[in-house]
Amino acid sequence: MRASVFVGTSLDGFIARRNGDFDFLPEGGGEPHGYDEFMASVDVLVIGRNTFEKVLTFEEWPYADKRVVVLSSRAIDASNVRGAAIEHMSGSPAVITDRLAASGASHAYVDGGITVQRFLRARLIQRLIVTRVPVLIGEGIPLFGSLPHDVRLRHIHTKTYPSGLVKSEYEVLG
Amino acid sequence: MRASVFVGTSLDGFIARRNGDFDFLPEGGGEPHGYDEFMASVDVLVIGRNTFEKVLTFEEWPYADKRVVVLSSRAIDASNVRGAAIEHMSGSPAVITDRLAASGASHAYVDGGITVQRFLRARLIQRLIVTRVPVLIGEGIPLFGSLPHDVRLRHIHTKTYPSGLVKSEYEVLG
Repeated sequence: MRASVFVGTSLDGFIARRNGDFDFLPEGGGEPHGYDEFMASVDVLVIGRNTFEKVLTFEEWPYADKRVVVLSSRAIDASNVRGAAIEHMSGSPAVITDRLAASGASHAYVDGGITVQRFLRARLIQRLIVTRVPVLIGEGIPLFGSLPHDVRLRHIHTKTYPSGLVKSEYEVLG
Repeated sequence: MRASVFVGTSLDGFIARRNGDFDFLPEGGGEPHGYDEFMASVDVLVIGRNTFEKVLTFEEWPYADKRVVVLSSRAIDASNVRGAAIEHMSGSPAVITDRLAASGASHAYVDGGITVQRFLRARLIQRLIVTRVPVLIGEGIPLFGSLPHDVRLRHIHTKTYPSGLVKSEYEVLG
């Protein structure tokens, strides 16, 4: 099983403001920059509790009927989500990855600040797709965090969009 | 007078490691990505004491005979630099900018972590040219810092290089 990250950040590297808002990102995800195509390529989403609880406040569940795994050491309440396949798992990224592979998953979309950082630290992300929004917000929740050692990347390609989005895709070499 | 930043960072946004090393950047600046052309377009470099003291440890003074202004609230010792035009200034970015303009400077290259952040906070940078090196280092000296408010940018262009460098140029809209 492989795992990818597809995320938008401010130019200074934040995925959200301190309070979890991402009003600095273009509304509705901005001009199309490959999110739908990426979503179509994954068979499971892996998100943390914070992202899950944020998404619950949206008017609509944004993941349609895609399989979603919520990571949390505590129980989660998914009773308000109808029509979606939500599972709860806990454990290390290695344990989660093994369980997903055993369940037949072939491509996971790992999302959310803490979750992305945990999987990157465990070297269990193979692909990073980062879209930079042309704004500096000064502080917030960073995409990247501390690492036990450098992580080398291979640049695959970069695409720019008229609204100023710059999307770069990297293979994680480890 | 206008001021620009031209800098390389890790994908996670660091210009140097905590100890000031930038061994994660390609040696000798990596494949040519416009530095010489940029340098030819500026008539003065503005750097802080930290950058100045780091540069003093290099085998060669890297700025040839370009005018260099070192910002520091204390005296600096430039006695080991021969053949270069080094000036010492102190004061707010606005004061420095006014003095540079009054001295006939038309395009300043603002460099160094703290100095870049101070000038960005004061909205005295007009152009940001950031080159991403394909590596995550986890921690270090960040390019960007806190801001009193969002800073909007306009993406001008992005160029990629075979070695994996991705150089993006932004106009600072304020």
